[in-house]
Amino acid sequence: MDEQSILAKLPRQHPNLLLGIGDDCAIFRPSADEDLVFTTDLFLEGVHFERTQAPDRAGRRALVRSLSDIAAMGAMPRFCLVSLVIPEWADETWIAAFYDGLLQLANETNTALAGGDLSHGAQFTADVMVCGAVPKGKALRRDGGRPGDAIYVSGELGGWRHRADPKPRLDFGQSLIGKATACIDISDGLSMDLRRLCLASNVSAVLDGIPMLPGATFSEAVHDGEDYELLFTAPEGLQLGFRIGTIREGNPGAVFFEGTLLEPKGYDHFRHRT
Amino acid sequence: MDEQSILAKLPRQHPNLLLGIGDDCAIFRPSADEDLVFTTDLFLEGVHFERTQAPDRAGRRALVRSLSDIAAMGAMPRFCLVSLVIPEWADETWIAAFYDGLLQLANETNTALAGGDLSHGAQFTADVMVCGAVPKGKALRRDGGRPGDAIYVSGELGGWRHRADPKPRLDFGQSLIGKATACIDISDGLSMDLRRLCLASNVSAVLDGIPMLPGATFSEAVHDGEDYELLFTAPEGLQLGFRIGTIREGNPGAVFFEGTLLEPKGYDHFRHRT
Repeated sequence: MDEQSILAKLPRQHPNLLLGIGDDCAIFRPSADEDLVFTTDLFLEGVHFERTQAPDRAGRRALVRSLSDIAAMGAMPRFCLVSLVIPEWADETWIAAFYDGLLQLANETNTALAGGDLSHGAQFTADVMVCGAVPKGKALRRDGGRPGDAIYVSGELGGWRHRADPKPRLDFGQSLIGKATACIDISDGLSMDLRRLCLASNVSAVLDGIPMLPGATFSEAVHDGEDYELLFTAPEGLQLGFRIGTIREGNPGAVFFEGTLLEPKGYDHFRHRT
Repeated sequence: MDEQSILAKLPRQHPNLLLGIGDDCAIFRPSADEDLVFTTDLFLEGVHFERTQAPDRAGRRALVRSLSDIAAMGAMPRFCLVSLVIPEWADETWIAAFYDGLLQLANETNTALAGGDLSHGAQFTADVMVCGAVPKGKALRRDGGRPGDAIYVSGELGGWRHRADPKPRLDFGQSLIGKATACIDISDGLSMDLRRLCLASNVSAVLDGIPMLPGATFSEAVHDGEDYELLFTAPEGLQLGFRIGTIREGNPGAVFFEGTLLEPKGYDHFRHRT
């Protein structure tokens, strides 16, 4: 197995991608009426997944993290770069299945694989960079929430453990352009991601209630990550998703529920280090 | 030390970068007359560097790999995304010094730090993605070498061990636009990278001689990587760099020196796995 033979098997697509895998760089020709958005997410054995997990599901989860960030900007994906650190235990069959899962989601979302890098190493690591495009000046940011805005989520929360095939909310995110004042994806739990939106917007939040999937506990719905739903603010009256609360002035970053401060307990990979 | 406090310290620049660190994605507004080029390179403890190395030098080397790919396309860098996997041994001081070295080179080359990701893990790993820009349709590729073209390198080879501050040949690469027929950077050794250029161009090469740095052996000059000089082909008579040979028809990928086939012995991180 060498790098060229692995990469040669993988599909490439998208009309704006002039050159994909096989040169020093990929070449992309931007459209004049679009801004580009970029995100990259790490996915490590023992941190974000366990090697006992099905490899195709792991591959899908490695990509969905970045695609969900693209959705949160109101953008649509164009291409990705995938860097893999491959340990001894990950044989060709495992790596092929990992790519299968990743590429299945890439194909579903029209995300071309434009390149990447490979190395051997001690711990399986994927770093997945996705470039997306959004109409010029229309990207949804975290910092636009205003006092009086209503707070919404794109779907019911707390069900990520039951989802074999997490899906990024790309169409939903695109539908928020020109309507939402701020948007973030729920990758680390509602409590933590709402805090981040409020900090960026210099506001606080009061929650009224959370739409929960059947069987989910309140704690799962509020604190668990990987739901990959979108959390957004907009003037009252928007008929999209579920209304869960209101943006208030002052106390930047604070989130209140039933009169008390909701502690952010979502998963912060870095905070958990120490 | 948390992710936001690390990232908040880092500079951001470049007028086309509308939004850098701190949202779900960075936002970049492309110029209408440019194509964008993208590359990403892994940099692992025990594979690409040793933890006994000075951390600022390691940081510089982690970035120069990708910048050299940008130079090989004739492009200039715009921004980078830096993902780090941080093991227990790498304390705040080490990480700060690593960023210092990386950002010093980023500043020298007008490369904005637009984002990234952080995780803890067993083995220090950096994955550095760089986006560059090149006039529309002018990017230098590997596949344009033609029989009869002369082969050139941008500088003397074999000296990487002595270079504390490797520099990407960005200005040199830019000067090749409209002149070179094919270009690649020498990151894995002349013998291997010339083979790659010849394979992509469906041609072979005959070498006449190699410009060597004082003290370098022939083997170092021909096979060692990390020189980060550019290797390119052009019609005879170009007054740039050093002429080292000629492109020939047939035997795709073969490189001849003094009548015999030169085996590619450069460093292939993936080939060395097994």
